[in-house]
Order: sequence, then structure tokens, then C-alpha cells
Amino acid sequence: MTMGSGEMCRFGVLTASDRASSGDYEDLSGPAIELFLGEAVTSPWEVVRCLVPDEQSLIEASLEELVDSDGCSVVVTTGGTGPAPRDVTPEATEAVCERMLPGFGEQMRAVSLRHVPTAVLSRQTAGIRGSCLILNLPGSPRSIREILDEVFAAVPYCVDLIGGPYITTDSSIVDAFRPPHARRE
Amino acid sequence: MTMGSGEMCRFGVLTASDRASSGDYEDLSGPAIELFLGEAVTSPWEVVRCLVPDEQSLIEASLEELVDSDGCSVVVTTGGTGPAPRDVTPEATEAVCERMLPGFGEQMRAVSLRHVPTAVLSRQTAGIRGSCLILNLPGSPRSIREILDEVFAAVPYCVDLIGGPYITTDSSIVDAFRPPHARRE
Amino acid sequence: MTMGSGEMCRFGVLTASDRASSGDYEDLSGPAIELFLGEAVTSPWEVVRCLVPDEQSLIEASLEELVDSDGCSVVVTTGGTGPAPRDVTPEATEAVCERMLPGFGEQMRAVSLRHVPTAVLSRQTAGIRGSCLILNLPGSPRSIREILDEVFAAVPYCVDLIGGPYITTDSSIVDAFRPPHARRE
Repeated sequence: MTMGSGEMCRFGVLTASDRASSGDYEDLSGPAIELFLGEAVTSPWEVVRCLVPDEQSLIEASLEELVDSDGCSVVVTTGGTGPAPRDVTPEATEAVCERMLPGFGEQMRAVSLRHVPTAVLSRQTAGIRGSCLILNLPGSPRSIREILDEVFAAVPYCVDLIGGPYITTDSSIVDAFRPPHARRE
Repeated sequence: MTMGSGEMCRFGVLTASDRASSGDYEDLSGPAIELFLGEAVTSPWEVVRCLVPDEQSLIEASLEELVDSDGCSVVVTTGGTGPAPRDVTPEATEAVCERMLPGFGEQMRAVSLRHVPTAVLSRQTAGIRGSCLILNLPGSPRSIREILDEVFAAVPYCVDLIGGPYITTDSSIVDAFRPPHARRE
Repeated sequence: MTMGSGEMCRFGVLTASDRASSGDYEDLSGPAIELFLGEAVTSPWEVVRCLVPDEQSLIEASLEELVDSDGCSVVVTTGGTGPAPRDVTPEATEAVCERMLPGFGEQMRAVSLRHVPTAVLSRQTAGIRGSCLILNLPGSPRSIREILDEVFAAVPYCVDLIGGPYITTDSSIVDAFRPPHARRE
């Protein structure tokens, strides 16, 4: 798969974390997502980063800006998906999405359950706002990678279907699938 | 299992497709469902067919007619379950159902994920209206068969529980399960 | 793991059943849950029992009392999760919870599907009210055990995260998982 067969895609990476946003510790989760994108995506892309505390209104405002103002076609969040009272990323995601894609949450939990039984506690979800896919990931960099390795295979075709750019991937990292009629070249 | 141990069941088969309903191409999905029913169901049955464009209000009206006027005990839809803006079958289904059965969507996606990673994008669901089970299937005839082969095993007992007819199946096609206390003969 | 490394936890066990609550037959499901707790939980615990008919308002009132008045940190329900019209436990649970944990329903159905295809019909769910986890189980004692054996591994850490007592388990029965930073001793 050669560079340039796809179109420029802007990815939003939103880290929701009280402690990382206050400078208590370094955000390792956002960079883990970018590292994956650097390895997996072969079509042109750029990233818009966002680091916010676990406040639903702030997460919602950031998601809206990433989609509506920054023109992101995919926004990946990390953090705030557990059962603790300060975990509100799924609520913020659902509030700004026009429709939900329940399969992502199911698959992400199933992937993580192979590694740790407490994956069942994650409330992560995914949905569509305009022509942008918003996807919640957990906070742990290791879990992020385990999930993206598997789930990202469906992202390019999803973006096609909702009117976004044509994304291509390195099949040695992620074997993105499109039905034959949707493939270019 | 002999013919006649069960009761007459009316199945509704609803195809949601802009292109098939406008005559752009032939509906292959509805017939794939009927083909399966012909092989699987050994108790008496008949079918009511319906072909509508991907308009939520039309799908809702058709589902209501299939259940309330035609007296279907099971309605199987095909098409309109993806993330594209014109895909509205799950919304229509949820709008006409009194309660949802989330397990069907989960299982159908899990079955299809064995074949194709983009199965995660399906929003298909199932629910109950009155004493009728409404079940969304995807549009592809191959996926329809993969899913029905597995999921239909729970349909007869579900119909029992919601007050519909006693459906029997050919166990070489689908091994329908009922707990011992719910079995006839 | 020695007794006393954890804190007193009050468990609520609610059986929803028209027939058991009217005395038509003995409640075997509630005792099956207590039997499991007796084998699995090594920190101090006590139980508050509740047997109610399948009436949504009564189940809701009982759940509220178990959480708000009795101070339960975990409430496990049994019964009323199927598709039949009298099955209303998930509705009652959702009505009294502030947030839902969809992973539990998914995992419980997946566990039961290994044993019986009609597990797909279960609508069981889980959610949080205050600092209490409410978990729906099916009615069958055998299914209860199959599910608790697997799902309970995530319960102690969930209770930690929502502000409840530190629960310890016998790892030969349930290998409860906590991330290293959340472990005592």
C-alpha cells in the first residue's frame, strides 16, 4: 500500500484526566494513541491534541470543537471510562453524538477482558457526530494499544460511510477492511 | 421432529433499501431470509413481505402494520443497520418496540466479527412489540445466513415467552433450544 | 489471603419472583447467591434478603431500601430478566441507578451463551446507585453460579472505585483482580 492513495485526515486525540491536566503527571495516553497512528496510518494525517480534566461540560465542549471547528474525522478519547464518579467521558460522548455505535464498546471490552477481568467495568462507547467518528479508549497505554490493534481495522470504512476522507493503513500493523466495492485502486 | 407439532406462525420479512425499493436492483436479502425459514422451520408458517426505502417513518409504519394488522409473531428486517446517515432501521425498530433485547445485537455482531472486522459498525438490535419479536439483520445475504444459523436457536422459545405460536425447527439446520418444562410432546 | 484484610460489606440479595414470593415454591436462587458469597468472600460480610413479586414498583422500592436504608454495597438480584411481560427487573434496576455498566450484561450473556443459546434473551444489566453496585442475575441457580464464578472477579475493584468497602476473595473460587496500585498489604 503506497502513501498518497488516501486523503488527508485530521485526528483529534482527547485526554480526559484530572491529574494529567493539572500537571500532576505526564499524559502518556494521548502520545500512545499518536504513536499507534504513526505506525498504522499510511495516508496523510495530522493530529489535534486536547488535555482536559474529568468535567463533563469541558469534555463535551472539547469534543464539539474538535469536530465542528477543527474538522476532525476521527476523535479518540482516553480516560474517564470507568465506574468512578469522576469518570464521565462516555456521558460527554453520548451527549455530543447524534447516533451511537454499540459494537465498539462491546468489542473493546471483549478485547480487554482477555487481559484483565476488570475490563467489564469500562463504559467506553463510540458514536457519530456529523461526519466524525468519536471513539472512547481506556486510560492505560497498554490497553490502548491492545484495543487499537484490533478495533482500528473497522475505522477507515466507518469514516468512508459517514462521509470522511479515505484512510489507508499499513496492513502489517492493522488490516483495515473494506468490502470490495468500497476499495480504491 | 414431525410437521404439525407446532402452530401456524406468520413471519414478516422487511427489506429496507433505497435502491431495491426503487427497482435499481433486485432484493436478494428478503429472499435469503425466506430461504432460511423454508429450511429451518418445520411447524406451519407463512410470510408477509415488505420492501421500503430507508426512511424511518416508512419503516416504522411498515413494522407497525406487520405486527398490529398482519399479526406477525416474528419480523425480520434486513438492511439499514450501518453507520451511514441513510441507515435508520435500528432507530425505527427501537421506536416501535416496547422493550429491547440487547443480547441479539451483541451476539449478531460477535458472529459477524468472526468473518469481517467491520461487523463492529453494525447497529442491529432486536425488541418486542406486543407479542412479536422484531429482529434486525444486515443487508448482505451471506451475513444473513451466518447470523440466522446461530441466532435462530433462541427465537422459538422467545416467541413462547411473549405469547406467540409454538415454532419447531429442523435440528439439522438450527437446534432450537427450550428448557425442558417448555417442551411439548 | 487471610480474613480481616478487608472491611465489612453488606450484600443485598433480592429475588424477584411471583411464584416464590407467593409461596408457590421455594426460593432457591437467593440461597444460591448466598452460598457463592460464603465460598468466595473472605472479608467480613453480611446479607440482607428480599423476596418480591415481579412488580416493577416493588422491585424499585426494595432496591432503594437495600441501598439507601440498609447500606448495601452490592445488591445482587435474581429473576425477572427474560423477555416475558412479567420480567421487569432490568427496568427497575435502570430506574434506580444513576449510571449503567453495560459490560456486565454483555459478559453475563456471553458466559451463559456457552451453555444455552437462549441466554441471548436475557436482558440482565448492572448499574450504580450511590456507592452501591446493583447486578442482575438470571433465575436459575445453575446459571447464577456459572455467571458469578466469572463475573465476581471484577466486583471488589468496582466497589473500591465507587467508594465501598475493601472486599477480599478466596482466589481458589474467584480470582478477584485489582491493579497493583489499588492492592492492600
